[in-house]
Amino acid sequence: MRESRLVTARSRRGLFVTFEGIEGSGKSTQLRILARRLRRLGVPLLVTRQPGGTPAGARLRRLLLHAGRIDPRAELLLMFADRRQHLTESIEPALAAGTLVLCDRYTDASRAYQGAGRGLGEDLVDLLHARFCGLEPDRTYLFDCPPATGLARVAAARGGKDRIEREALAFHRRVRAAYLARARKEPGRFLVLDGTRPVEELAERVAGDLDTLRAAR
Amino acid sequence: MRESRLVTARSRRGLFVTFEGIEGSGKSTQLRILARRLRRLGVPLLVTRQPGGTPAGARLRRLLLHAGRIDPRAELLLMFADRRQHLTESIEPALAAGTLVLCDRYTDASRAYQGAGRGLGEDLVDLLHARFCGLEPDRTYLFDCPPATGLARVAAARGGKDRIEREALAFHRRVRAAYLARARKEPGRFLVLDGTRPVEELAERVAGDLDTLRAAR
Repeated sequence: MRESRLVTARSRRGLFVTFEGIEGSGKSTQLRILARRLRRLGVPLLVTRQPGGTPAGARLRRLLLHAGRIDPRAELLLMFADRRQHLTESIEPALAAGTLVLCDRYTDASRAYQGAGRGLGEDLVDLLHARFCGLEPDRTYLFDCPPATGLARVAAARGGKDRIEREALAFHRRVRAAYLARARKEPGRFLVLDGTRPVEELAERVAGDLDTLRAAR
Repeated sequence: MRESRLVTARSRRGLFVTFEGIEGSGKSTQLRILARRLRRLGVPLLVTRQPGGTPAGARLRRLLLHAGRIDPRAELLLMFADRRQHLTESIEPALAAGTLVLCDRYTDASRAYQGAGRGLGEDLVDLLHARFCGLEPDRTYLFDCPPATGLARVAAARGGKDRIEREALAFHRRVRAAYLARARKEPGRFLVLDGTRPVEELAERVAGDLDTLRAAR
């Protein structure tokens, strides 16, 4: 327990803010806009993502994307290995130094994708989170949108056709429903935004919410 | 749950045999000798190891060995990701086909090295084993020897000096004690052998024990 003691709310000072949503929901775009704004304001900032936020994590991310058929439970464990390493090496020290951390995906993504999408169950994800991470975000922005819209956006951005497989749609519907269910469980932490609204409108709502949060510290 | 259902004792037919012990205990040598003997007898055999028993696992193993400072909890999760993948891709299908599986290290190694050696606690390892693996070996050969002996053997084999750091010794003493404690807890599964005895004598005891076990099936 010496080296990797779990950080408690008391011992950290920076805000931990996560961005969640299905593919094509606009979360990464909104994270970039917010980061640009905060940098202009001179706010000390760490912009990062999961998986792949550390050198070891980047190798893990490549392994996940390229290693062929990965068992769903093995995938979940790899995600949490990445997360634990990312917390120790990067997020926890940044928060301790008073840095605001913006993270593209965190444990809610595992709940939605591995827990609900792949059908491993959210309790298994909660168990790993409690025993290996523990750190809760101060705020989670959930960009909600219909899977058909999100996947069409992704296909358009890639220059491919926007034909969407039924299987992919069903999977992303489970993911979306899990995100929304988690947001209902933790209304104090989540802000749910309609990802089909214009980018500028969403950016303003996020900026306004974060200003309020920072002022309350 | 469809793809990676945990295998129960009832559904498998091959014997699952693991080899454990500290570095330099002679376990890998004994595994090789036994494998050679079984091949001569025409026994269908899978000889494998953890970590690194699958293509993805081999990449994980390199990551563990070369990625610099890995958080102990992240390391434990990576070990279990490798283990889960190895079970699904290799061990479970082999056992289902009636193949005898000889595996160099399994969950007992995580109990001893990460649980006791790194101080994460055996309960955390047991929890991961129960939720992500479940499969118990039919027989575990534990090659016990004093850490000073084992580490001196390793150093000699590498052609280095046999000076052993006190920190390394203390770590391996905890690992050895944890192995022995686990063997006392599960006397039906473990056969503890004195790793300082001659190689041929140990090989005969292992061969004799396995013959008895195979005859009882």
